[in-house]
Amino acid sequence: MNNSPFTLHCRSSQSPARRGEVKTAHGTFQTPVFMPVGTQATVKGVTPENLQELGAQIILGNTYHLYIRPGHELIRKLGGLHKFMHWDGPILTDSGGFQIFSLRELAKITEAGAAFKSHLDGSNLFLSPEDAVLVQEALGSDIMMCLDTCIPYPATREEVIKGTALTGRWAQRSRAAHQNRSQLLFGIVQGGMHEDLRAEAVDELVEIGFDGYAIGGLSVGEDQERMLHITEHTAALLPEAFPKYLMGVGTPEDLVEAVWRGIDMFDCVMPTRNARNGMLFTSTGRLVIKNARYREDARPLDEACGCYTCRHYSRAYLRHLYMAKEILSSHLNTIHNLHYFVNLLGAMRQAIEADRLAEFRRDFYTRREVEAE
Amino acid sequence: MNNSPFTLHCRSSQSPARRGEVKTAHGTFQTPVFMPVGTQATVKGVTPENLQELGAQIILGNTYHLYIRPGHELIRKLGGLHKFMHWDGPILTDSGGFQIFSLRELAKITEAGAAFKSHLDGSNLFLSPEDAVLVQEALGSDIMMCLDTCIPYPATREEVIKGTALTGRWAQRSRAAHQNRSQLLFGIVQGGMHEDLRAEAVDELVEIGFDGYAIGGLSVGEDQERMLHITEHTAALLPEAFPKYLMGVGTPEDLVEAVWRGIDMFDCVMPTRNARNGMLFTSTGRLVIKNARYREDARPLDEACGCYTCRHYSRAYLRHLYMAKEILSSHLNTIHNLHYFVNLLGAMRQAIEADRLAEFRRDFYTRREVEAE
Repeated sequence: MNNSPFTLHCRSSQSPARRGEVKTAHGTFQTPVFMPVGTQATVKGVTPENLQELGAQIILGNTYHLYIRPGHELIRKLGGLHKFMHWDGPILTDSGGFQIFSLRELAKITEAGAAFKSHLDGSNLFLSPEDAVLVQEALGSDIMMCLDTCIPYPATREEVIKGTALTGRWAQRSRAAHQNRSQLLFGIVQGGMHEDLRAEAVDELVEIGFDGYAIGGLSVGEDQERMLHITEHTAALLPEAFPKYLMGVGTPEDLVEAVWRGIDMFDCVMPTRNARNGMLFTSTGRLVIKNARYREDARPLDEACGCYTCRHYSRAYLRHLYMAKEILSSHLNTIHNLHYFVNLLGAMRQAIEADRLAEFRRDFYTRREVEAE
Repeated sequence: MNNSPFTLHCRSSQSPARRGEVKTAHGTFQTPVFMPVGTQATVKGVTPENLQELGAQIILGNTYHLYIRPGHELIRKLGGLHKFMHWDGPILTDSGGFQIFSLRELAKITEAGAAFKSHLDGSNLFLSPEDAVLVQEALGSDIMMCLDTCIPYPATREEVIKGTALTGRWAQRSRAAHQNRSQLLFGIVQGGMHEDLRAEAVDELVEIGFDGYAIGGLSVGEDQERMLHITEHTAALLPEAFPKYLMGVGTPEDLVEAVWRGIDMFDCVMPTRNARNGMLFTSTGRLVIKNARYREDARPLDEACGCYTCRHYSRAYLRHLYMAKEILSSHLNTIHNLHYFVNLLGAMRQAIEADRLAEFRRDFYTRREVEAE
């Protein structure tokens, strides 16, 4: 068993939820945590100082994108991803697997690794599990992810077995390639919607031994009930001493439910992408800023919110910026949405400490119902 | 003669350059000054806090754009332009004349005012000189500009006479319509490239009496020598007790030359627009960030610059953001370019105080020659 970077602070008596922290080479972050996504060495539309101010503790970078542009060797030469993008806190990099999988007919998965074409110039590229570790070592991220195969949904049981087994063999190779132990390496549990295959995948990864464990292959089209069921099932099987990370999830409702079920770490493009499309998350529900009802609305996006955007700007102004396609629209909306997601997790941390997560969860839905009336 | 908002601090012994300040309802700004352009109630790509940090003292808003979207009555209802856009410092609004003129065949100028079609939805609109004052009063800007007619270049002497005379009659009507004296009103000198017509226009405007005087109709296609000649000629005729504003100018070189000739105030979209297009201004000249030579360049944009962008980011990172079309590219480039323009004027204020403007001007060109070698 590895030394774990995870320290447990306390547990909920109401559910498997837990409160802890994860130690990395660039500092410690408190869990449960939401990680803003910084695909191309920038969280779209905001500065590192904005991220700090809104409470982000750790951000995510995309190996696939950085590998293609500007290239991991360039980033290494310039001092690593932290220095390159001026972010001193923890960074988690994904392995590139999910993006390569998203290329569909442009990608071919073999035992050796993933052959794919660059979405930028069509050039032929190849990434093995070992390559994915080397690229992430060049980037210098604090938490690296093993290259995994993404299993489509729906899929036959045979397809799931095949993809999960390959992910297991790749995990073994990733662990063997892992040289720089100041960078943590997380394994990814596949297994589709099958409880037994998830359990086998957990056993296999724990046998290899990682610094943390991620649940992959969810939020790929299945309904929320199924996603939460597999999350709960898998989270319960993962070793308690290590961080549990649910990849690519999700809506505020998903986050509340997955924390309730024992997840420590989350990432999702939803707050940043939706911000740019004018969809804002608030304590009373969602708000589409282009709606004519906000034309003369002097109120902030969310009267319960203390973010920079809500402290200084009206819905009317934000609507104007959106309609006028101003850059500041994306900036202010992104600050608000990330603040909402990051602080939703902060509020859940407090609720777990107070052992009132059930009450928090009930209030969370009640506020939304009021708005929906 | 009005009470002037202008206080002279000192004069250069080397040229007509001068150092002073202008008092407005939202504070006093030091001159000579560069005003960032905030067309649609936002300086594109940056926040008011960014503007403060980079040293901006006063910003400009575009009456034409705000009149069309979101509308001056909406802005009045929401507490005025300052509150709407969260900028507490001085704001100058143009009259809309220049933008309407730019619509060309979509605009028709008559004695009564300007009839034009909205560039957004083609609707028929009309702006009289009185309307322009009322709209700017609704916006609540600190300095309002009279509606003027823009004279094309080149133009016949007859065309220039006609346009300049109409601008004079509109100035008279603007003054008569001006109710809220806490908002300053500036007249605009037209007269094309004709010294005698510029002189007549100055006399006419001074006779009416304004809080400041602008030189319009330059930087419209004429060469720099002609522009500076008319600037020098007109600035010398304008009353010394009032601010002198050269509208829409210009390059760093233009600013140095126009301050030398006695201009107090400037605005131009060049630093903001060029920033978004990846063209950066530095103390040693211009830099096109997409150039391959910057691919691995760990240096800041300008080693002599203390802006946020130059303190934290490399040329290689800025090139990456530009190539990847990231929003942060516009943000960081705009901060740098505006810092350059705003602080170029700050350095000239110091040079005038030290009575070393000639030396400053010589060094300004010498540094550029070194780079050009």
